[in-house]
Amino acid sequence: MDNPFREFLVSRNAPEPCTIVIFGATGDLTHRKLIPALYNMHSAGDLPAGTRVIGFARREKSHEQFRTELAEMNRKVSRSGHSEDDWNLFANSIFYHQSEFQDESGYQGLSTFLAELEKDCANPPNRLYYLASAPEFFDDILEKMRVTGLNETSGNGWARVVVEKPFGTDLKTAQRLNSIVNATFDEKDTYRIDHYLGKETAQNIMVLRFANAIFEPIWNNRHIDHVQITCAENLGMEGGRGGYYDTAGALRDMVQNHLLQLFSLIAMEPPVDLSADGIRDEKVKVIKSLRPMEGRVGENAVRAQYTEGTILGEVVPGYRQEDRIAPNSMTEPYVALRLQIQNWRWEGVPFYMRMGKRLPKKVTEISIHFKEPPGVLFSHFPVTARENVLTIRIQPDEGISLRMLSKIPGPSIRMEPVKMDFHYSSSFGKASPEAYERLLLDAMAGDATLFARRDEVENAWHFIDQIEHGWHGVDETLQPPMAEYPAGTWGPTEADELLHRDGRRWRRL
Amino acid sequence: MDNPFREFLVSRNAPEPCTIVIFGATGDLTHRKLIPALYNMHSAGDLPAGTRVIGFARREKSHEQFRTELAEMNRKVSRSGHSEDDWNLFANSIFYHQSEFQDESGYQGLSTFLAELEKDCANPPNRLYYLASAPEFFDDILEKMRVTGLNETSGNGWARVVVEKPFGTDLKTAQRLNSIVNATFDEKDTYRIDHYLGKETAQNIMVLRFANAIFEPIWNNRHIDHVQITCAENLGMEGGRGGYYDTAGALRDMVQNHLLQLFSLIAMEPPVDLSADGIRDEKVKVIKSLRPMEGRVGENAVRAQYTEGTILGEVVPGYRQEDRIAPNSMTEPYVALRLQIQNWRWEGVPFYMRMGKRLPKKVTEISIHFKEPPGVLFSHFPVTARENVLTIRIQPDEGISLRMLSKIPGPSIRMEPVKMDFHYSSSFGKASPEAYERLLLDAMAGDATLFARRDEVENAWHFIDQIEHGWHGVDETLQPPMAEYPAGTWGPTEADELLHRDGRRWRRL
Repeated sequence: MDNPFREFLVSRNAPEPCTIVIFGATGDLTHRKLIPALYNMHSAGDLPAGTRVIGFARREKSHEQFRTELAEMNRKVSRSGHSEDDWNLFANSIFYHQSEFQDESGYQGLSTFLAELEKDCANPPNRLYYLASAPEFFDDILEKMRVTGLNETSGNGWARVVVEKPFGTDLKTAQRLNSIVNATFDEKDTYRIDHYLGKETAQNIMVLRFANAIFEPIWNNRHIDHVQITCAENLGMEGGRGGYYDTAGALRDMVQNHLLQLFSLIAMEPPVDLSADGIRDEKVKVIKSLRPMEGRVGENAVRAQYTEGTILGEVVPGYRQEDRIAPNSMTEPYVALRLQIQNWRWEGVPFYMRMGKRLPKKVTEISIHFKEPPGVLFSHFPVTARENVLTIRIQPDEGISLRMLSKIPGPSIRMEPVKMDFHYSSSFGKASPEAYERLLLDAMAGDATLFARRDEVENAWHFIDQIEHGWHGVDETLQPPMAEYPAGTWGPTEADELLHRDGRRWRRL
Repeated sequence: MDNPFREFLVSRNAPEPCTIVIFGATGDLTHRKLIPALYNMHSAGDLPAGTRVIGFARREKSHEQFRTELAEMNRKVSRSGHSEDDWNLFANSIFYHQSEFQDESGYQGLSTFLAELEKDCANPPNRLYYLASAPEFFDDILEKMRVTGLNETSGNGWARVVVEKPFGTDLKTAQRLNSIVNATFDEKDTYRIDHYLGKETAQNIMVLRFANAIFEPIWNNRHIDHVQITCAENLGMEGGRGGYYDTAGALRDMVQNHLLQLFSLIAMEPPVDLSADGIRDEKVKVIKSLRPMEGRVGENAVRAQYTEGTILGEVVPGYRQEDRIAPNSMTEPYVALRLQIQNWRWEGVPFYMRMGKRLPKKVTEISIHFKEPPGVLFSHFPVTARENVLTIRIQPDEGISLRMLSKIPGPSIRMEPVKMDFHYSSSFGKASPEAYERLLLDAMAGDATLFARRDEVENAWHFIDQIEHGWHGVDETLQPPMAEYPAGTWGPTEADELLHRDGRRWRRL
């Protein structure tokens, strides 16, 4: 099985050495995620030799200062454990370049610096630009790159751009950003990152569905009753999260990207092949098949804010009392949706989705609820729950389980739901790699499978916009109310009602 | 869920107090299985108050001697732990009645003794006769019971008979025995015991298939490639097993009853209802649908004897060298079969069955091997095994597992078979009750579901006879050879060949 020749056959293209330029290099994402991910890859020997990192940001600092700051954070958060020796080797390839985002000369300086670094190097002059700044600078950065020719390749090198979320705030802004991106980089060189797609269990959805023969035959409206997708967080707005969040809300911050991505992996048709476009073609199709929300927002979408409550024994403030949240905010830290897909496979199977802050715990999972067996034979035996449920746990404790009815040992026929279980960690004896590690390697290898394509992003926004318009339309009296739930509970009763109306209920997590 | 009213609704009829008369009460079955099972039921409070046991056998002994002998064995084998106080309470209801099996006056004496015991008792005069003697006495016992009227009920009581295996040695003898049984007892009062059906996992097969919605849609020749049923034993002929065994062999001793019972639970159509006859109707149907073996024995059945070998580090003799085995014996301690069912569900799906002594370990399991997914998408990725397998472990470690392909954590798509697992013991936190406990309670409750009906037994023999005739026909030169395998290995190469010819192989256990 570990025949290295066969292994070679199935690996995707190897990641290639390049210079990674991170715009917004003094921010949280760079410190907490990108650099630790690159360091882990370096320690594990996965980072191609000759890879370099240039931090681009506004503050004045030296290469050495930058490295010291990064080392400090890496010591705290490194998944593989920070080793000073390893770090020093790695940090030799990290540089800092100071510039305002609007300052063209800063980009010219970057160009010169890049050329200098590349001059002494045998590797092709590959460049991976990573937009990790606040989103309001994306336009400027892209435009200046274009003006100064940073987007162009030289020699046998490539130039790619990774764009962090949020990718727009609605369809119009997303289209505008896409136009700018595509004026600067080819779509094939554009990598819109969604770190949920880098999670092992998310990637495993396709393997589960299409490498196994037993699920696809029952993966349709004849056998599935409904699907639930839950993303629960117990955090609120602490640590300065408030400001940006209050302009976004759960729908735009999480549903438009992460949850719709998970949704499309579950609901899509089998792709023609495993190419990036083969898969993304199907993801787009299923998002386009969503029944329009226009005129139906009130009955299919619930938004809510948490009020003061207790979480893990600690009293926490309500959403409107949080730091950097408007006291009359109409932004939703909780959303529950009822989606319908208009195609042959899914007609009549609702997909329920919920995302909330300040829920009792942090958990993301998808559950496929199968129909009950015909009402004969065992149907009159009382059980707590009759339907089979396939659960895909995205985080934490990544894994899969199947709930089914089993006989309770003993002389009479009594049944109880039991679980067949599979845990990633115990089965493979190692933690799954961080999503960012996977995605950076993919971008370096030119594999866009786990990145969102332009039409995916725009179709997702098209759908989300309908809900936003329902919530924030011109006539306030027509808008559905903002529901409430105490922090530390499982959301508002209105969200329960969304399922009760259909004779269903949220899975207890 | 533990609402006692609901519980009441689903329990089958309650077991009723009765007098259990065991014919052949000094034998191993009584000492090792029946009395310990009754004692456990007594300790657990499951034995209806007023239940009595009368041992009927040839040797002269007093009630007290009989009780003392039984106590001795119960101390050794009791599953729930032997308590002297409990035992003494239980033993008060045990009696001994001496008689030859052919001696009519002994039965008259039994009748008088029963009447005496029943006279002082408020319970109805229920009687459960248990034929636990050597099978050659079954005829005599039944005839004498009929002549002396022991088979008749008096007042509001019932009279039932439990018949132990072997139930005949071929179709003719089984039919003859059935005629005698049915001349003495109604078919509805006849309980042909097969202790495999008392095992929890065997009973759970029906719950698994029909109380869950996800298996039935794929339980057919469109989705299942083949099925394997394995019953492996590591014991040989030690402890005096040889004599009887050499007249029977694996096919008659295990396949005709236990393995064909498991087979029919897996392969049968959904029954009309859960009544004893509803289920047995379907079991008979699938056995009748087996493709006849006539003229095909050589290519579909392998028989073998073990030769000297090593098992658990100990050198053990070959079958023909064992105690009480004929040195030129043509009896098979190993059999492997390839069965085909001729109906709409199973056309083209072979059922492979193997049973052997002196195999590397003791294990009984059924595995359902699903077809591979279509040859697209993941089909060119190398994996050790591609097909989904649902395994039902009958013993030991009763449980169910589902093998499926999962992505191995890491940057490239590599897959490996993993198992979703469910263990009876850890899920329910208690050992499953002994099969005999369950079956005795069922007989006392008048529930014949887990007992073989006349037509089941006869149809099974009809099928088995075809194989026996192929092996032991008139012209010895036409008979397929007796294969060989060293003790402690997984059977003869001929059995491997049986599957290799079809492009399949036995599951490694």
